Amino acid sequence: MSAIRLVIGNKNFSSWSMRPWLLLKQSDIAFDEVSVPLYQRNTAEKLGPLSPSLKVPALIHQQTTVWDSLAICEYISEAFLDGRGWPASPRKRATARSVCAEIHSEFPNLKKDWPMNCKAVVELARPEVIENEIARIDAIWSCCRRKYGVDGDYMFGRFSIADCMYAPVAISFHNYGAILSTEARKYADTLLANPWVREWISLAQAEQDIQAPMGAVSNM
Amino acid sequence: MSAIRLVIGNKNFSSWSMRPWLLLKQSDIAFDEVSVPLYQRNTAEKLGPLSPSLKVPALIHQQTTVWDSLAICEYISEAFLDGRGWPASPRKRATARSVCAEIHSEFPNLKKDWPMNCKAVVELARPEVIENEIARIDAIWSCCRRKYGVDGDYMFGRFSIADCMYAPVAISFHNYGAILSTEARKYADTLLANPWVREWISLAQAEQDIQAPMGAVSNM
Repeated sequence: MSAIRLVIGNKNFSSWSMRPWLLLKQSDIAFDEVSVPLYQRNTAEKLGPLSPSLKVPALIHQQTTVWDSLAICEYISEAFLDGRGWPASPRKRATARSVCAEIHSEFPNLKKDWPMNCKAVVELARPEVIENEIARIDAIWSCCRRKYGVDGDYMFGRFSIADCMYAPVAISFHNYGAILSTEARKYADTLLANPWVREWISLAQAEQDIQAPMGAVSNM
Repeated sequence: MSAIRLVIGNKNFSSWSMRPWLLLKQSDIAFDEVSVPLYQRNTAEKLGPLSPSLKVPALIHQQTTVWDSLAICEYISEAFLDGRGWPASPRKRATARSVCAEIHSEFPNLKKDWPMNCKAVVELARPEVIENEIARIDAIWSCCRRKYGVDGDYMFGRFSIADCMYAPVAISFHNYGAILSTEARKYADTLLANPWVREWISLAQAEQDIQAPMGAVSNM
């Protein structure tokens, strides 16, 4: 057994699980996956001993349990990457943390009506509240790429936690037909071409179907 | 003019503004407050040059703009406190980041129906979804105090970002009549007795009234 365990939900739906999983994989850090099927009668019971919030993801390393995707990414960066989960420059790092915090707590309409579903390729409606949130994410991607992305194809040049936080968004935008600027589209394509993003999607598509809790699948 | 500017909204409502304000004050870091009244016709126009997300809070330091309360607190800790915004022990720090991330993105019902309002002291309804969220916060406070709080009265002993993130919650719990365990109540009292929390409440209460956007004030 590896010294690190990552507790995750169903790959097809759990965009929050994907984020630290992607950081660990891309950083070549060995870990054991503990998969807890979501939306089952015994989900909370199974999560009880693994995650204090009864939510996924959680990471267990020696005597430490850390939960919530953003806190887990900070922990991985500190404990295993000597801070290299974030860009090295203080200014880039501050911007990266800002855009990560923004996707963490904002965009309620995308989270509600455009949740990640790796199996669903379907054009979804784009009411104004959705268009506005897509436009804000487009602006984040384009602006960061132009200002900070010169030394690579990721949001801040080389791969960072910011890319993990936005990778599930790229999947939703691709699957549901978001219309993006050229710069943002190019960045989304970089995320979708990442081998570990492709691996996650492939594993998600191979999962046994469960009853989906939200809108996207019922539109299939 | 100070080298640091903190862009905040109305003190009476903007719990997110309060969090980095409290960290700066408690850490004795000089800064200029830039106050932008919320919910006005020209709010977005005024925020445009100050905050890329058009939301408060934002912190401007030299050439760096950082936005979102959590990212700002990380920045303050790194740039001005040599990391002392968080507990020093890696395990305590991981837990502190977890509980901060949790209040940052979870508790939708408390955020919607029990928003901070320093002027409103009124018993609010506690439907099951509210009671469940109060119980989870009670568990966070009690558990952190018992496991990590031996060297002081704050959540992790000495004052940290975790206390900033939960201070507005203590105000709401006090004003709206949440029923807490003895341990959690004691911790809430510590937050409410903090001189800078008292200062914020006092300044909020002295603000000119604006039309409140949410439920609490209409219950006054």
